[in-house]
Amino acid sequence: METSIFTVMSQMALEYKAINLSQGFPNFKSDPVLVDLVTKAMNEGYNQYAPMAGDMGLREAIASKIERTASKRYNPNTEITVTAGATQAIFTAIAATIKKGDEVILFTPAYDCYQPTIELFGGVAVPIQLQAPNYAPNWDEVAERITLSTKMIIINSPHNPSGMLFSESDMLQLENLVDKHNLLVISDEVYEHIIFDGAQHQSAAMFPKLASKTFITASFGKTFHNTGWKVGYCVAPEPLMKAFQNVHQFNVFSVNHPVQKALATYLQNPENYLGLSRFYQEKRDFFLDLLKKSRFSILPSQGTYFQLLDFSAISSEGDIAFAERLTKTLKVATIPTSVFNANKEDFKQIRVCFAKTNETLEEAAAILNKL
Amino acid sequence: METSIFTVMSQMALEYKAINLSQGFPNFKSDPVLVDLVTKAMNEGYNQYAPMAGDMGLREAIASKIERTASKRYNPNTEITVTAGATQAIFTAIAATIKKGDEVILFTPAYDCYQPTIELFGGVAVPIQLQAPNYAPNWDEVAERITLSTKMIIINSPHNPSGMLFSESDMLQLENLVDKHNLLVISDEVYEHIIFDGAQHQSAAMFPKLASKTFITASFGKTFHNTGWKVGYCVAPEPLMKAFQNVHQFNVFSVNHPVQKALATYLQNPENYLGLSRFYQEKRDFFLDLLKKSRFSILPSQGTYFQLLDFSAISSEGDIAFAERLTKTLKVATIPTSVFNANKEDFKQIRVCFAKTNETLEEAAAILNKL
Ligand SMILES: CSCCC(=O)C(=O)O
Ligand SMILES: CSCCC(=O)C(=O)O
Repeated sequence: METSIFTVMSQMALEYKAINLSQGFPNFKSDPVLVDLVTKAMNEGYNQYAPMAGDMGLREAIASKIERTASKRYNPNTEITVTAGATQAIFTAIAATIKKGDEVILFTPAYDCYQPTIELFGGVAVPIQLQAPNYAPNWDEVAERITLSTKMIIINSPHNPSGMLFSESDMLQLENLVDKHNLLVISDEVYEHIIFDGAQHQSAAMFPKLASKTFITASFGKTFHNTGWKVGYCVAPEPLMKAFQNVHQFNVFSVNHPVQKALATYLQNPENYLGLSRFYQEKRDFFLDLLKKSRFSILPSQGTYFQLLDFSAISSEGDIAFAERLTKTLKVATIPTSVFNANKEDFKQIRVCFAKTNETLEEAAAILNKL
Repeated sequence: METSIFTVMSQMALEYKAINLSQGFPNFKSDPVLVDLVTKAMNEGYNQYAPMAGDMGLREAIASKIERTASKRYNPNTEITVTAGATQAIFTAIAATIKKGDEVILFTPAYDCYQPTIELFGGVAVPIQLQAPNYAPNWDEVAERITLSTKMIIINSPHNPSGMLFSESDMLQLENLVDKHNLLVISDEVYEHIIFDGAQHQSAAMFPKLASKTFITASFGKTFHNTGWKVGYCVAPEPLMKAFQNVHQFNVFSVNHPVQKALATYLQNPENYLGLSRFYQEKRDFFLDLLKKSRFSILPSQGTYFQLLDFSAISSEGDIAFAERLTKTLKVATIPTSVFNANKEDFKQIRVCFAKTNETLEEAAAILNKL
């Protein structure tokens, strides 16, 4: 296992005093109401171990949030666990299910934790390369790659880094394969509330047969602008959740209690997340409008707070060299996307995070436009 | 893996409205100064990802704290990682080192996460049973149990549940074995600052050859009365820490940032933890004085906020049945210690946590005295 690209690029940004558009986090404030709820919870004395599965109020609020969009109610007693972020949820779901020799299909480019975690438990990662510019999955190819050893498929929609969204048809084809071959699924839905241009997020929870085999993982940090609080969750049908909790209880045991109490209250009001898509669509449009003058070619995107930029008209460098030069000499840190690809294939694209103040986006665009 | 005894007993305590002396956490407040520091950090905007290894100020404060007692300075850049509690640190150290077939020696009774975590990674737990009333390790027995497959020894001093403390001689004998057989060590030191009757905690950090093979894991929750904040740490020499971080970055990635910022400030003042031994010794003495009238026999203890009570003069029940009856009908929840033992050996002892207000201890003692 190597050092995560997010650590590498954030450290480089710091060292070279570059504007940091690399690691995915906002540079503006979380809602002060939510901050005050955490303070309130601490002052009220919620400072000792939360229940292993999470604060019951928060689990109920999670169940209600999912029910609102997916018309499926996960049972807060047996089907929901609050985690120390979505990464810990993904790690734990893999730990609970993957044994030596199990094959796990994933789509690359992919968030960099999937493969090393699969391998830590003796599994074999089977990466399927999505192709620029649309990064759409090819379900015939997926079907071909399924073997008797295939245990799981990991999906991530909206997709980091491309912003691609699985359509209803994608989900139905996935459901068919999962059902036919009796597979498990991790559906990484951390950007579920950041969807653009009127598209609809297709959660695995909306497809009953699929949901019966799926761990859905999600993040409050991405939704409420506080990635540093490290609270997310996993939902899954009872037998899967039981296996999950068996590992969870010996991994982190439980999660920050005051933050859970605060989220339990805050999450009850859908206003607190229903505006997120519009908020980020405006940021995206603001940023891309500024980049119109640039020589980058802008890839299509339907969600997440990331944007891929093709730099092939600017430079013939490899994307890692290009991103390094951008950070060190031009002072804008981004993520070279080849690191997320199977075989490190280089599409000459960098990923920028636009979860930044308009001022930061203006500064960054001014630099990028000079290239 | 079964449901952790701590979840089982805390739920039973809740259900039967029993005084909860089972799971190890205080029922009094954390220092309001520390709570205010967390609020301050949130208001100052430390709400995004902390560095993967932890806030640098906190890592420096940890290094200084250890240096004060062990005259060894761990390098904050390469030898320290802040974790989501000590349990996550232990899980991650095992994940980073234990492969299929590796044997791991541990002493039972033992905190219940060690064995399932070892087994999750294909390791073989080799439990060595400590004997009541002193629970002292027998190093000849340890030497006999070492094989060519032995990879690691896990120690825990002061010891949960017995309160036993490894002496300097214990540590030297351990160091000899570790050196001779080239073993790794996890030294679970979460109760390091709760030591009674003028005894000295012997940290693995004080023994250079031992320290060179050891992951030390520790907990701020136990030291600062906020087990629900879930922040601890691991220190180890650079090659071990590198392996640790390789897993850590894909497990939880990083830890609650505002709490880390607060601890970075709070930990700089040794006054904030140097009084802890006296504080808990007074609680222990207060509680045991009340129990003098009881028919329990009180076991010797040198640290932790737990006390073992032998109930063989009261009942011939098994300890699980006894603890259940105590919770359900007498309304005091405790932990039956057989669950921590290899082969579930029953010494007719229950563990009580005395990290409680004097009022709670008085109420509990009044009930226990009636038995
Ligand atoms: C856990 S650090 C990674 C943050 C993130 O989701 C990303 O930048 O892709
Ligand atoms: C993580 S729950 C266990 C708390 C504890 O350390 C104990 O009760 O022994």
